[in-house]
Amino acid sequence: MSKDRHRPPSAVIRKSNKKNLMVFSGRAHPELAQEVAAQIGTELVPTSAYDFANGEIYVRYEESVRGSDAFVIQSHTTPINECIMEHLLMVDALKRASAKRITVVLPFYGYARQDKKHRGREPISARLVADMFKAAGADRLMAVDLHTDQIQGFFDGPVDHLFAQPVLAEHVQKYYGHEELAVVSPDAGRIKVAEQWSRTLGGAPLAFIHKTRDIHQPNVSIANRVVGDVRGRICVLVDDMIDTGGTIAKACEALMKDGAKGVVMAATHAILSDPATQRLKECGALEVVVTNTLPIAPEAEFDTLTVLSIAPLISRAIMEVFEDGSVTSLFDGHA
Amino acid sequence: MSKDRHRPPSAVIRKSNKKNLMVFSGRAHPELAQEVAAQIGTELVPTSAYDFANGEIYVRYEESVRGSDAFVIQSHTTPINECIMEHLLMVDALKRASAKRITVVLPFYGYARQDKKHRGREPISARLVADMFKAAGADRLMAVDLHTDQIQGFFDGPVDHLFAQPVLAEHVQKYYGHEELAVVSPDAGRIKVAEQWSRTLGGAPLAFIHKTRDIHQPNVSIANRVVGDVRGRICVLVDDMIDTGGTIAKACEALMKDGAKGVVMAATHAILSDPATQRLKECGALEVVVTNTLPIAPEAEFDTLTVLSIAPLISRAIMEVFEDGSVTSLFDGHA
Amino acid sequence: MSKDRHRPPSAVIRKSNKKNLMVFSGRAHPELAQEVAAQIGTELVPTSAYDFANGEIYVRYEESVRGSDAFVIQSHTTPINECIMEHLLMVDALKRASAKRITVVLPFYGYARQDKKHRGREPISARLVADMFKAAGADRLMAVDLHTDQIQGFFDGPVDHLFAQPVLAEHVQKYYGHEELAVVSPDAGRIKVAEQWSRTLGGAPLAFIHKTRDIHQPNVSIANRVVGDVRGRICVLVDDMIDTGGTIAKACEALMKDGAKGVVMAATHAILSDPATQRLKECGALEVVVTNTLPIAPEAEFDTLTVLSIAPLISRAIMEVFEDGSVTSLFDGHA
Amino acid sequence: MSKDRHRPPSAVIRKSNKKNLMVFSGRAHPELAQEVAAQIGTELVPTSAYDFANGEIYVRYEESVRGSDAFVIQSHTTPINECIMEHLLMVDALKRASAKRITVVLPFYGYARQDKKHRGREPISARLVADMFKAAGADRLMAVDLHTDQIQGFFDGPVDHLFAQPVLAEHVQKYYGHEELAVVSPDAGRIKVAEQWSRTLGGAPLAFIHKTRDIHQPNVSIANRVVGDVRGRICVLVDDMIDTGGTIAKACEALMKDGAKGVVMAATHAILSDPATQRLKECGALEVVVTNTLPIAPEAEFDTLTVLSIAPLISRAIMEVFEDGSVTSLFDGHA
Amino acid sequence: MSKDRHRPPSAVIRKSNKKNLMVFSGRAHPELAQEVAAQIGTELVPTSAYDFANGEIYVRYEESVRGSDAFVIQSHTTPINECIMEHLLMVDALKRASAKRITVVLPFYGYARQDKKHRGREPISARLVADMFKAAGADRLMAVDLHTDQIQGFFDGPVDHLFAQPVLAEHVQKYYGHEELAVVSPDAGRIKVAEQWSRTLGGAPLAFIHKTRDIHQPNVSIANRVVGDVRGRICVLVDDMIDTGGTIAKACEALMKDGAKGVVMAATHAILSDPATQRLKECGALEVVVTNTLPIAPEAEFDTLTVLSIAPLISRAIMEVFEDGSVTSLFDGHA
Amino acid sequence: MSKDRHRPPSAVIRKSNKKNLMVFSGRAHPELAQEVAAQIGTELVPTSAYDFANGEIYVRYEESVRGSDAFVIQSHTTPINECIMEHLLMVDALKRASAKRITVVLPFYGYARQDKKHRGREPISARLVADMFKAAGADRLMAVDLHTDQIQGFFDGPVDHLFAQPVLAEHVQKYYGHEELAVVSPDAGRIKVAEQWSRTLGGAPLAFIHKTRDIHQPNVSIANRVVGDVRGRICVLVDDMIDTGGTIAKACEALMKDGAKGVVMAATHAILSDPATQRLKECGALEVVVTNTLPIAPEAEFDTLTVLSIAPLISRAIMEVFEDGSVTSLFDGHA
Repeated sequence: MSKDRHRPPSAVIRKSNKKNLMVFSGRAHPELAQEVAAQIGTELVPTSAYDFANGEIYVRYEESVRGSDAFVIQSHTTPINECIMEHLLMVDALKRASAKRITVVLPFYGYARQDKKHRGREPISARLVADMFKAAGADRLMAVDLHTDQIQGFFDGPVDHLFAQPVLAEHVQKYYGHEELAVVSPDAGRIKVAEQWSRTLGGAPLAFIHKTRDIHQPNVSIANRVVGDVRGRICVLVDDMIDTGGTIAKACEALMKDGAKGVVMAATHAILSDPATQRLKECGALEVVVTNTLPIAPEAEFDTLTVLSIAPLISRAIMEVFEDGSVTSLFDGHA
Repeated sequence: MSKDRHRPPSAVIRKSNKKNLMVFSGRAHPELAQEVAAQIGTELVPTSAYDFANGEIYVRYEESVRGSDAFVIQSHTTPINECIMEHLLMVDALKRASAKRITVVLPFYGYARQDKKHRGREPISARLVADMFKAAGADRLMAVDLHTDQIQGFFDGPVDHLFAQPVLAEHVQKYYGHEELAVVSPDAGRIKVAEQWSRTLGGAPLAFIHKTRDIHQPNVSIANRVVGDVRGRICVLVDDMIDTGGTIAKACEALMKDGAKGVVMAATHAILSDPATQRLKECGALEVVVTNTLPIAPEAEFDTLTVLSIAPLISRAIMEVFEDGSVTSLFDGHA
Repeated sequence: MSKDRHRPPSAVIRKSNKKNLMVFSGRAHPELAQEVAAQIGTELVPTSAYDFANGEIYVRYEESVRGSDAFVIQSHTTPINECIMEHLLMVDALKRASAKRITVVLPFYGYARQDKKHRGREPISARLVADMFKAAGADRLMAVDLHTDQIQGFFDGPVDHLFAQPVLAEHVQKYYGHEELAVVSPDAGRIKVAEQWSRTLGGAPLAFIHKTRDIHQPNVSIANRVVGDVRGRICVLVDDMIDTGGTIAKACEALMKDGAKGVVMAATHAILSDPATQRLKECGALEVVVTNTLPIAPEAEFDTLTVLSIAPLISRAIMEVFEDGSVTSLFDGHA
Repeated sequence: MSKDRHRPPSAVIRKSNKKNLMVFSGRAHPELAQEVAAQIGTELVPTSAYDFANGEIYVRYEESVRGSDAFVIQSHTTPINECIMEHLLMVDALKRASAKRITVVLPFYGYARQDKKHRGREPISARLVADMFKAAGADRLMAVDLHTDQIQGFFDGPVDHLFAQPVLAEHVQKYYGHEELAVVSPDAGRIKVAEQWSRTLGGAPLAFIHKTRDIHQPNVSIANRVVGDVRGRICVLVDDMIDTGGTIAKACEALMKDGAKGVVMAATHAILSDPATQRLKECGALEVVVTNTLPIAPEAEFDTLTVLSIAPLISRAIMEVFEDGSVTSLFDGHA
Repeated sequence: MSKDRHRPPSAVIRKSNKKNLMVFSGRAHPELAQEVAAQIGTELVPTSAYDFANGEIYVRYEESVRGSDAFVIQSHTTPINECIMEHLLMVDALKRASAKRITVVLPFYGYARQDKKHRGREPISARLVADMFKAAGADRLMAVDLHTDQIQGFFDGPVDHLFAQPVLAEHVQKYYGHEELAVVSPDAGRIKVAEQWSRTLGGAPLAFIHKTRDIHQPNVSIANRVVGDVRGRICVLVDDMIDTGGTIAKACEALMKDGAKGVVMAATHAILSDPATQRLKECGALEVVVTNTLPIAPEAEFDTLTVLSIAPLISRAIMEVFEDGSVTSLFDGHA
Repeated sequence: MSKDRHRPPSAVIRKSNKKNLMVFSGRAHPELAQEVAAQIGTELVPTSAYDFANGEIYVRYEESVRGSDAFVIQSHTTPINECIMEHLLMVDALKRASAKRITVVLPFYGYARQDKKHRGREPISARLVADMFKAAGADRLMAVDLHTDQIQGFFDGPVDHLFAQPVLAEHVQKYYGHEELAVVSPDAGRIKVAEQWSRTLGGAPLAFIHKTRDIHQPNVSIANRVVGDVRGRICVLVDDMIDTGGTIAKACEALMKDGAKGVVMAATHAILSDPATQRLKECGALEVVVTNTLPIAPEAEFDTLTVLSIAPLISRAIMEVFEDGSVTSLFDGHA
């Protein structure tokens, strides 16, 4: 007979265990975070954040976060290193204030393009970012459209990878679905994404632009010929992000020169570094469809730019994570 | 007056926190895992697992495992390295799919015999196995009859160590308890186990076989003389595992030569590598009692082999762990 | 349509998740731990602890601690290395016995004064203590009046830092608040603490003792002149701890020589190493106010010594931690 | 005056510090390792390795490895899990035997294709492999043609990534350089590699095969139409590996159907799982050029198969690493 | 007889082991790094560093760094988060390029003032900075005048802490040594530093400024009365850094009002955030003596500012570290 | 042509790399450490070590240890927790002072007997000790006769395990080799050691004492009957340590009662806790042979006690480690 099992527990206080969802936002893109919080049915946790005179960032939460299931949203926009550092400091503060679980939400993951050594003696900056969040105390990551899927493997823990493609594709299907479409990748390295689009758009034919990028001069690319047949078709030019817009604008021109009927651009992340706006306005595209994973400055907007909200996707994913549901289920039939 | 304490929590969503027990099995010994799941009152989580053409293993869970209290059962049987790798991949997949807690259940812990450096420049393989499960994401281990107790200390976290000896001893007591018994260790290094048996069997006298094992030739041993008096007694020859059966079969012969009335063998782990079955059949033992921690191939069975189920022990231990009860209590009066 | 989301969960057992508070104490200062447990409304978990013949410590819990929210209280008193080692062994035992969360409660944190390298080739012992608790399995620390605030940063995880100053100051205010007070630091390095006292005591003027401490001869100090004006005032001489009492006793004498009307000493930690008691008795102080973070031997007590209990502070902090409340709120208006 | 600096060092024994290069090989592909060792000018370290009766692997080095700069070569060939486990055990043994630095040399990195979660609840097996080598004690990795460059970021330490493409391209240039060439990727996801080939082969035009791979049925793919113009050209069909050969054989057929003049296949890793040999023999390719990163069984060879040795590349890289030279320099003008 | 010992080593290549010192600099303050390199007798390693359009930083070394004893110098100046991120990326690149040992040289350590939680729910940013450098691959740190000595304990590894005080004090002694001096701390928390100055300046009397700093409004402070006697003396007002200059300028005014004969300010780190220059010019100080741990913009300079070079100190320390000498010896008689 | 390879190295300073052996000792057993240092041909590094008034230990090295190959010797004798803590502090100080490699030398490893959980809710103290040395900064361990070989696997790094048995056996062979010997284990769990002795002593027959140890009462054991035949023989009673001597003294009596001609005891570690000396004097043994891994107090000595020095073994092992020789070779033909 076990005396351990039947002795009344003399030295225990029992209490039911609640989960407490709290959503936090840095200063990079509070509009998106507020939209997410509202859709979840809560508010952002009141937070003090400001810069000291020499640029050091100060962060403090105005309410107790002890025991919380914390989701910390920050888009890595310009000035990108400040945004990342603020994000890290927020995680450190949550860890030291006894948050129970910390999920770092990255609508746009900074340095994602530096996910490998292109040449010797470079950093793998995307891995460093993952390591720094781990060091700061992150338990989990949630990210939208990582530059490559392998980045999930850079973090030692769960990564919920959300796909904006269904959101963008629904829009394209609605407005251009009646046309003869082709799906075009502006870059040989990203045709996998175009294949996914092709499947979603009923098997539209594929093409890509064969070009060389000079790795010594960042943000400059030399467009070459179109590989695949695009004549007479509305080309859906797809990419994960638009930075200075050089690659995609030249791709657009090449497609028009090759006899395309028109070009629609779709990308998740609208970085829109200068001179992206000018290039996109002038390249002749019918429409440029993006999401709000990054804030878009008023002066960067233009007539043919359509911004779809990513907030519904993020808020549903947060609720699935909080309630131990399935994030995979959000993409059934898609991925 | 603290404004923190009395301000209504504006930015929290509360939800009661459930624990979700899920049981998983690799392909090594699904019968045992199914038996365990059934005794717990659940089913194994549907899982895809197969080999690619070059032997790489693929694993995927068919249901969401987010937030689960996961128990992953795999016996490390032949082909042992595949079984271990599949086990590790299952843990990695659980970690990345946000299981809350991962308990690795090892009815038989592979490489447990390599728990020290016998000579210089060897690995300590049992420690490496523990480290690999840690690296993959295991929070806890549960194992049956580890080769040495010290292996618990190889894992940086809780290890629930289950003992099959009560199961085996109950059987021996029932069928041979009326005889004059002696407890015999086939190996000088494992007499502690025999002492435990002696206590359980009412203080039966002890003996052991003094032999030398040539470490340059694995699985070969040279039996020597019996130390202790076994004349006229039924000898219960006890060990933790039977691999090729050479040691224990020779021990049996030595005991019969020394005047034993008969020999009953008892061991937890029935590895039964070739030519164990032949040796055990021919050695003259009255009965060979083992458990099903490892699957036993039909062709390895023989008339005097008795296989007792370890499932009740594992299922009770899993429930104690899940319900925050006491695994220690399962062995009160025994250990 | 997602089949994942709507398939009834076939392979899950759900159970509500309780939190179980358990309080543990080593052998250093059980009276304090019992007082804390009683104020929380529970008892200390029955624990076996004794020394083997060669001084090795043995520890075992008499009840199951699986799944507990464990608070392990140990004051690091004399013999201090045994107290620390016992504390570490208790944490290791909790980790291996599957406690859910382990909070190390340090009413007095041993080696806190060695928080930096005073000269080259010294250890940073306070960091080593933090690292050892981490290695043993501590999830969180709770400490009273750390020698420097930076020690919080030595531990890789949450640290709840409790302040005894309000407890001490309430006593001083009550008995001396009607006098003309001055707040005096016995050491140039700790005037920040005196500033805090000055604020609490209505802006009493500050002073400090300018001395040199010879780092080659521990526990010896050479008092110098008083910096600041203390003439005709009751001086509240404040420090975090009183060890051998040399510094503070000489400070007292210097203040009296400088025309102070009287001296009240206040310190959180009463180490009282020999010959502290004699020095404090003879130095002419009106009262020495301390707390019971450390046990005070009967022979170390003296007439003008007042010992206030720290137990209410610790028990309230433990309840806030257990119930996911706010420890910060305990000090609102103070820190 | 510093007494530290000028006191004669009374308590030091000085000795010049040598670097000792040692090369080790597992049992997977000793021919390659021997070739590497011979080109370096040394021999493989004598090593005992065998399987116990139940399949557990035993490893021991016959000479002291203390202080060595160790390079441990193992190709992850069939049976792949044994090869990986043996590799890990060899690393563990080196670590425990005080090797100074351990470089894991992976001519073929097992599980490299599982470098991301294709769907939810899968492992990221390539990251797990990196983590296991880290856990075993690896300081550095050296690998040939990783399936994706991002895998470098899976390991927390230096990875020397060697490219076999110059070796293969030199052969193709020599025998087919006078023809009109096109470079074709059998898979949309690997056109980047084809671009590299195009640059090496003087700007030959690019094409790719647009197909869908059913992820539920491993090793099966459905070839689709050729994207790009290949009419009348010798197509160099390039990939990193040939496993069952299904994808590449169907690509070959599609190219011939589209009017290609002929097809030459080039791939670094010749896994050649059944029925690769039959498919490659029957698909009509002029030549299949591979390297010996993996051993090729005699029965898998066929007339049009050309095997180039990767040993010169690996041996030069090892010498650069040992002598603190530049591995990057081995690929100048190429990568 | 041991055959291991006397068998000729058949499988080893021996080579003498060199140490290779290399000095690297980010873009924050290349003049200081060049000065350091020149004094060591070498040049900075040629390095590419630029910003991508969205502000992400790119770093690459132009020469092989394999096996180097690397010292990476970066002052954390404005924009401080970029400087820190660049520093981290440089360390990551060194780690992945097989540098043998990486020493991070921090003339000014960013976020050092956030070395504790002033209130609940703040980060400990200085610890986070240490953790991030560890995560990136730093083996060692070298820093000048850390804000508090305890920061050494934030890094899990060796920290060489250099003191600029001798450099500053030599200047003050030379130009003001013939005057009646007093040493004044502008802040109660830093009188320890003033005590060190007092010892160096022949036992000059101490004073400090008693003020309160409002932690809700950064960079603002309220000066209060002088504690200690400064009448008729030249006051040496000492601090570790001058940021906006508010505290020290008000201290200067308070000293003059209290009858000081004149004020000389001395501080190691000249952050000089706006409006420091104006305040320092107008406060009436005779001279402001600082070092060049941070770059000083031409527009921030003014007539009474004296900038001493810290390069000799750093270069001597680097040589001591490289040659396994004693950094402690650099400060004998001082610390 | 590679410009990397042929550009003269502009930015490197090269220097030959020396190894510097330094030997350190704590205060536990300086005589042994001095003997080791002398045999190596050096002196102990001058070290300050004392206790503060409250028992905290202070440690500092008087000479630079930067870059040293450090061997830190400390026997874990009474008061054992102080000895361990001092050992840990010495390691931390070496790590922070930039020692290149730290080898912890443990003539006697404290808490080695607590190498497993005998019952639930105990610590595994021997693993905790290994973890603490790792946390403090130890790279390697060297230990003499660990209580169980598995303890090597508790440390994540190389462990050099030295065997004193050859030293003891040589003495026994010399003085008793002409007699009819038997080798006896006082404990069923340690017969493996006796088997090793039997091999060394020309195949002498084995016996062991069958007893039960009551785990609730430490240091108490109940001797039972002798298993094996010892009549007329000189019994060599072997164990790894003698603590209170109860077990071995009762074993001695049992052997004499069973007709042994005489008893010689041999054990590596002479803990000799009270009342060991009295028991050993009175038990009738001819001689008690031990080594000086632990200091033996003058009052603990007695006529029949022989103390052999372990210093030659340790000093040879240190030299092999320093010179990258083979420690395994020290035991060829023995282990």
